[in-house]
Amino acid sequence: MQITVIEYVLSCLDDLGIDDVFGVAGDYAFPIEDAVCNSNTMRWIGNCNELNAAYAADGYARVKGAAALSTTFGVGELSAMNGIAGAYAENLPIFHLVGMPASTAQENKKLVHHTLGNGQFDIFYKMSQNVVCAHAIMTPDNCIEETKRLIAYALKERKPVYMGFPSDYAVSPVKEQTTTKAVTFPESDPVTLDKAVKKIVEKLTNSKTACVMPGILSARLGFAIEVQAIIDQSNLPYTTMFMDKSVLSEANPQYIGMYNGHLLNKTVQEYVEHCDCILGIGAMLTDFNTGSFTAQIPNERYINIMPDHVKIGLAVYHNIYMKDVLAKLKDSLPKFSMNAPKATGLGEPVSGKDGKITAEYFYARLEKMFKKDDIIFAETGNSSMGLGFAHLPENAKIYNQTLWGSIGWATPAAFGAAVAEPNRRVILITGEGSHQLTAQEISQFARFGLKPIVIVLNNDGYLIERLLCNDPETYYNNLAQWNYSELPKALGCNDWECKQVTNCQELDAAIQQAEQSEHASYIEVMTDRYAASELGEKMKESKDTLY
Amino acid sequence: MQITVIEYVLSCLDDLGIDDVFGVAGDYAFPIEDAVCNSNTMRWIGNCNELNAAYAADGYARVKGAAALSTTFGVGELSAMNGIAGAYAENLPIFHLVGMPASTAQENKKLVHHTLGNGQFDIFYKMSQNVVCAHAIMTPDNCIEETKRLIAYALKERKPVYMGFPSDYAVSPVKEQTTTKAVTFPESDPVTLDKAVKKIVEKLTNSKTACVMPGILSARLGFAIEVQAIIDQSNLPYTTMFMDKSVLSEANPQYIGMYNGHLLNKTVQEYVEHCDCILGIGAMLTDFNTGSFTAQIPNERYINIMPDHVKIGLAVYHNIYMKDVLAKLKDSLPKFSMNAPKATGLGEPVSGKDGKITAEYFYARLEKMFKKDDIIFAETGNSSMGLGFAHLPENAKIYNQTLWGSIGWATPAAFGAAVAEPNRRVILITGEGSHQLTAQEISQFARFGLKPIVIVLNNDGYLIERLLCNDPETYYNNLAQWNYSELPKALGCNDWECKQVTNCQELDAAIQQAEQSEHASYIEVMTDRYAASELGEKMKESKDTLY
Repeated sequence: MQITVIEYVLSCLDDLGIDDVFGVAGDYAFPIEDAVCNSNTMRWIGNCNELNAAYAADGYARVKGAAALSTTFGVGELSAMNGIAGAYAENLPIFHLVGMPASTAQENKKLVHHTLGNGQFDIFYKMSQNVVCAHAIMTPDNCIEETKRLIAYALKERKPVYMGFPSDYAVSPVKEQTTTKAVTFPESDPVTLDKAVKKIVEKLTNSKTACVMPGILSARLGFAIEVQAIIDQSNLPYTTMFMDKSVLSEANPQYIGMYNGHLLNKTVQEYVEHCDCILGIGAMLTDFNTGSFTAQIPNERYINIMPDHVKIGLAVYHNIYMKDVLAKLKDSLPKFSMNAPKATGLGEPVSGKDGKITAEYFYARLEKMFKKDDIIFAETGNSSMGLGFAHLPENAKIYNQTLWGSIGWATPAAFGAAVAEPNRRVILITGEGSHQLTAQEISQFARFGLKPIVIVLNNDGYLIERLLCNDPETYYNNLAQWNYSELPKALGCNDWECKQVTNCQELDAAIQQAEQSEHASYIEVMTDRYAASELGEKMKESKDTLY
Repeated sequence: MQITVIEYVLSCLDDLGIDDVFGVAGDYAFPIEDAVCNSNTMRWIGNCNELNAAYAADGYARVKGAAALSTTFGVGELSAMNGIAGAYAENLPIFHLVGMPASTAQENKKLVHHTLGNGQFDIFYKMSQNVVCAHAIMTPDNCIEETKRLIAYALKERKPVYMGFPSDYAVSPVKEQTTTKAVTFPESDPVTLDKAVKKIVEKLTNSKTACVMPGILSARLGFAIEVQAIIDQSNLPYTTMFMDKSVLSEANPQYIGMYNGHLLNKTVQEYVEHCDCILGIGAMLTDFNTGSFTAQIPNERYINIMPDHVKIGLAVYHNIYMKDVLAKLKDSLPKFSMNAPKATGLGEPVSGKDGKITAEYFYARLEKMFKKDDIIFAETGNSSMGLGFAHLPENAKIYNQTLWGSIGWATPAAFGAAVAEPNRRVILITGEGSHQLTAQEISQFARFGLKPIVIVLNNDGYLIERLLCNDPETYYNNLAQWNYSELPKALGCNDWECKQVTNCQELDAAIQQAEQSEHASYIEVMTDRYAASELGEKMKESKDTLY
């Protein structure tokens, strides 16, 4: 068997549908990069830096289910760490392939570059173990078994895994293993499963009003179709929280809109909080999901089907798995007929004095441009907050990073998604402060022939921070003043349509041009410094409940 | 006593001469940022992203001795991690001030943003502990004692420290401590000290030829003046290795030039390797210091004075400290008279056919432009390799990152140095591949009114990797094609002199213009894809000894 360790691993990832490996080339990782570039089925996507590469892998995994990232020892893997932690928090399986110095260099504690100079080679590996669900140093001996195990964990937990490749091992032939241990996970306990599902059905049947609250975990675990089937079958209305935006198509007639505690959407709030039963499916009651903890969902009316347990009121049913619960539930639910509100959108755009671009105009105007199947990346901050309440057409998806909330994520993540789905329209909406962290990754869209619509909201600083800090005018919220609309050209996006727009008419024209153009577009949207999304304003008012 | 925890810490850092705090604003770190911005003596330097901020702090610490960095919980601190690890490897004390969620949120395991959603708040703190020399979560009770301890360790080890500030503790008044434990470190054992110094003097006195090899640790620990005094006193010739470039002024007549094993500088190699005694002072025999391990320094002729021990041949003298060894040595050394070579430079620039910019021209031309007191940042790769052999004028310094070697470092590090020394000329030389990682930080020079000369070497890819990998033309060494000379303008450097130069005449003109201009300059230098530094070529030939 002449296949090498790295070739074996790549072929397994290829089998999962991972066609692209994001990363930055580095010498200890040459064997990995060589194997990718020499492969007939995989493609190396060189990013500008490793954090951007990790974010791109995150975006790719959001649309494709899983992704691969390769970085070099020390410098590369540590740069990517924040992106990997984000993938952990937000349940995205990323296979992080790390090129390490040769095993002999490690054994001899050689003083080589990309080390701390102390002869310790396991430090970065140990650090990473905190933000992955499984990890291994790959060797010819363990390769087959460990690859199987790591893939199994990544797909079960939907979290990143770490695979370290000492450079000599990477190119050594895999040793065949006659018997490998099967990776098994516990199965649902049939008695508990039966009891829990009966209890859920009973609770729902005894409710005058009820709703489903599909959460991000249901989508990440790959059960969106099952959840949709339950809703279709039962006719139950459903709402989503911020992190769960568009886990199911928002065009579904049962959709009642976004629930954000007491901050916004009063109609939805009243319906949800008066329900006799709220059925969460992989929902997380985090700060930003609950409208800065203003949500009032009493335990006794709340059920949550989680990946490996079900909570019904205060009772927890352990050792039953989402897949089985959903399957059984679908077959057990009657048809309901609830009088629930219908999802509404942002309404007509309202411009400011002299045609100024207000928040009321901006987000509502974007909502109007969204089309079926659009992939929309909304950066943490007012971008995502304003768009969270847009009502999306069929199958359009807004991706945000509600829990991890690492600004800068959206620009490279949108690139990763565009790589994964080159034939769908990708729209990136980012504040200019967040954009500054990772803006160079724009250049990769052009390099790989991808044609996004990029909208950069320039409100002269970190607006969400102005809203949340003590003194909005304190100078740490200020930024270097860039000429954003000149940036794509400088970054080699030579044929992009680039515009700076300062009033609503110009914004309309720029959007129209973007929609008609054969090229990618980049629109810098100038607003007042305090043109905040409605949610941003509400968060400011309620910031004491947040911190 | 009404001073708060964060105010107390900042006042202690201020006492160390740290006037600036680099970072990216984030909500959990508001108390830190507020305190900096409200201080009369400190300044907040907002960077584009956290890794860039860490690199900037690294650059600042290189010229000023110590630096401060502030990031927010999780997302911010992990993004900075590679920069902190680099500061650990390269012995730079950076005070990393991390804003954390309030202690109450932590105790209640609240599901808040910037966490992994698992209620664990100590994960990132634990990860950081691997790349700092001391760490603490700051509270009103421990503040005075822990601040004292962390400062003592940072300055002793010359490595970063981690200070976590739960947001509520940060703004609480410091509790006075009537007695705080003094931070003491062991002192040199007088008997061993005496023995070791006698042995060194004896070895040197019995040598027909000898040289000093001042290493980076001597400079980082603040003993450059003492090392220079030893050389002045003894008249011993000295050489430096790659990482140790310009630790002492290269204009000193005793300087014989760079020693790089058998790769380059044959005259120096022959002198050094034939010495009867080579006296290292804080030198590290790493891969790139030893010319890819080609250096031949037999143990029996090698002495190395390290921070807390001295190696003489195979014998190690423990518990004696560099400071004491240097002081005693200075008083014990006779005057020597050795017939050693004199340092030479790169000679006259040699242009290519039709005036093409060759490596032979480029580095020699740069050498000619360097002036007394220049601060030069040379990015890892051909930039630093080519400049490593330039002979510098009085007190000019070239900073590189030989051991950690994280590409992208030089651009923000040069910015940090410029903040620290606004009245000295700062020159940044970087390859375009490295520049892509962190290029946005260019914008901060303009924002803070700093006027560097930036030289971007565009050789169409990662040249050093082309030299070291299996197939130089493999596509992972390719880059997105930027229009570099348009970048500063897009990044808001509106009055910079920006040029792309394609031949030697244009390069000369651009350098001349840069030297005469009142503004900053940015010069993109186009060379052939394989216009490698001589060292790069030699490393290619000897790559088997490296890996």
